[in-house]
Amino acid sequence: MSELLFVGLGLFDEKDLTVRALEELSRCEVLFAEEYTSRWGEGALRRLSERLGRPVELLEREQVEEGGKVLSALEGHSRVALLVVGEPFAATTHVSLRLSVEEKGHAWRVLHNASILTAAASLAGLSHYRFGRTVSLPRPVPGFRPTSPYDLILANWRAELHTLVLLDLDPKAGVFLLGGEALQRLAEMEREKKGGLFVPERRVVVVARAGSPTASVHVGRLTELEGKDFGPPLHCLIVPGPSLHFVEEEALRRSAPTQGTAPQGPVG
Amino acid sequence: MSELLFVGLGLFDEKDLTVRALEELSRCEVLFAEEYTSRWGEGALRRLSERLGRPVELLEREQVEEGGKVLSALEGHSRVALLVVGEPFAATTHVSLRLSVEEKGHAWRVLHNASILTAAASLAGLSHYRFGRTVSLPRPVPGFRPTSPYDLILANWRAELHTLVLLDLDPKAGVFLLGGEALQRLAEMEREKKGGLFVPERRVVVVARAGSPTASVHVGRLTELEGKDFGPPLHCLIVPGPSLHFVEEEALRRSAPTQGTAPQGPVG
Repeated sequence: MSELLFVGLGLFDEKDLTVRALEELSRCEVLFAEEYTSRWGEGALRRLSERLGRPVELLEREQVEEGGKVLSALEGHSRVALLVVGEPFAATTHVSLRLSVEEKGHAWRVLHNASILTAAASLAGLSHYRFGRTVSLPRPVPGFRPTSPYDLILANWRAELHTLVLLDLDPKAGVFLLGGEALQRLAEMEREKKGGLFVPERRVVVVARAGSPTASVHVGRLTELEGKDFGPPLHCLIVPGPSLHFVEEEALRRSAPTQGTAPQGPVG
Repeated sequence: MSELLFVGLGLFDEKDLTVRALEELSRCEVLFAEEYTSRWGEGALRRLSERLGRPVELLEREQVEEGGKVLSALEGHSRVALLVVGEPFAATTHVSLRLSVEEKGHAWRVLHNASILTAAASLAGLSHYRFGRTVSLPRPVPGFRPTSPYDLILANWRAELHTLVLLDLDPKAGVFLLGGEALQRLAEMEREKKGGLFVPERRVVVVARAGSPTASVHVGRLTELEGKDFGPPLHCLIVPGPSLHFVEEEALRRSAPTQGTAPQGPVG
């Protein structure tokens, strides 16, 4: 019986791998990675490959979802790894692969790591226990401008909960929905839905490059932040609920752009 | 200006630290840790201390919350670290400390790591996007048996969302609410609230020791799992929502106790 190891890379580069992950990877015979659910920091995959002294093959979305390449490797090797940015099973697509692995009679294990799902709230200083369901915001494309994200954020708001809004990305094409544009989308949805959620004075949060040396948190009214440039991706949004704990309130106040961003130095 | 580094330890032991965290810790002059919001694997703090070649001082809850000891260290040293199990700001108490650090004119940074907030869903194979707010279940003590967790889980259920239920713990006292007992509490709440949620046949999930070498996932009807022994802590529960994606359904089916637990080997 062979084993597939799902390895979480954390949020930025090869140094975000855990000590255990590095040890385990050095014992794996075949190393795969994917970069379609998120992206690695510049040069990180190459440096990891050098550090491990062997190639890391980057798989396309279709290759992971169809599974053939990974499953073939498991037929000829006892230890195979798939490297995934963040936490491995945060993307449902990898649960499908693990089911295929089980189906073929192989084992799997996971090495957890940091995820934007928790890092964003941490950076903003908002309580993880006061978040409702996470919402994904797609890039607007002709003929596809769904407003369902608005409804989900509004449902959280009405339940007095914060919302983490993840922004659409296509790393292969180099296309990332950025914070300023995403806020414009939400303001557009407000004009259509008229739920009173994204009024001009609504306080919103942009978290840029969480987990990287240039991580930053920006807090302001929708009109202040929409369309603004927060630097390179990845970005995400947080829509705070209607009432904040005083610690949350203070954390947001200190993250306001006029007072500098919260993380004050590089990560690495 | 001095700097406090909040370092996430991940879920089990010193090998769950990231490569970056180890590098940064070796450059810190004073090392603190806390073990009241969760607990380290056996011997992990000692091994880390040996690896770094210097003491790691374990702080009590009061010492972290009051902040004096950490703030004093920042007066005399430029680089101080606080090690926290999981993701550092998942516990609101550490956001308070970071505000105190800023108040005194010092900087802070965070090194993210894995959290039970994402690891539990990952192990169970449930989609992170289909979870509502996380619920904490306190240990029942005389005169304090709140049923508010029931209401929160029911609200998620009605919104067709899963619920992660974190179980109360007091590592210092060696007291941990375990999965079997927690399910009994939920069944008790059902008898009181009569919302129809925790009926005997309701499918529930116990995730035991996530991120450790003996991680396991148990899926079954409430009557099958309540009161059962799932081994040593830490445990948490997942209450799946009323409808599952077919990948989620398949993942839960494969985790059912009769078919073995999902993670098939040790982590380390």
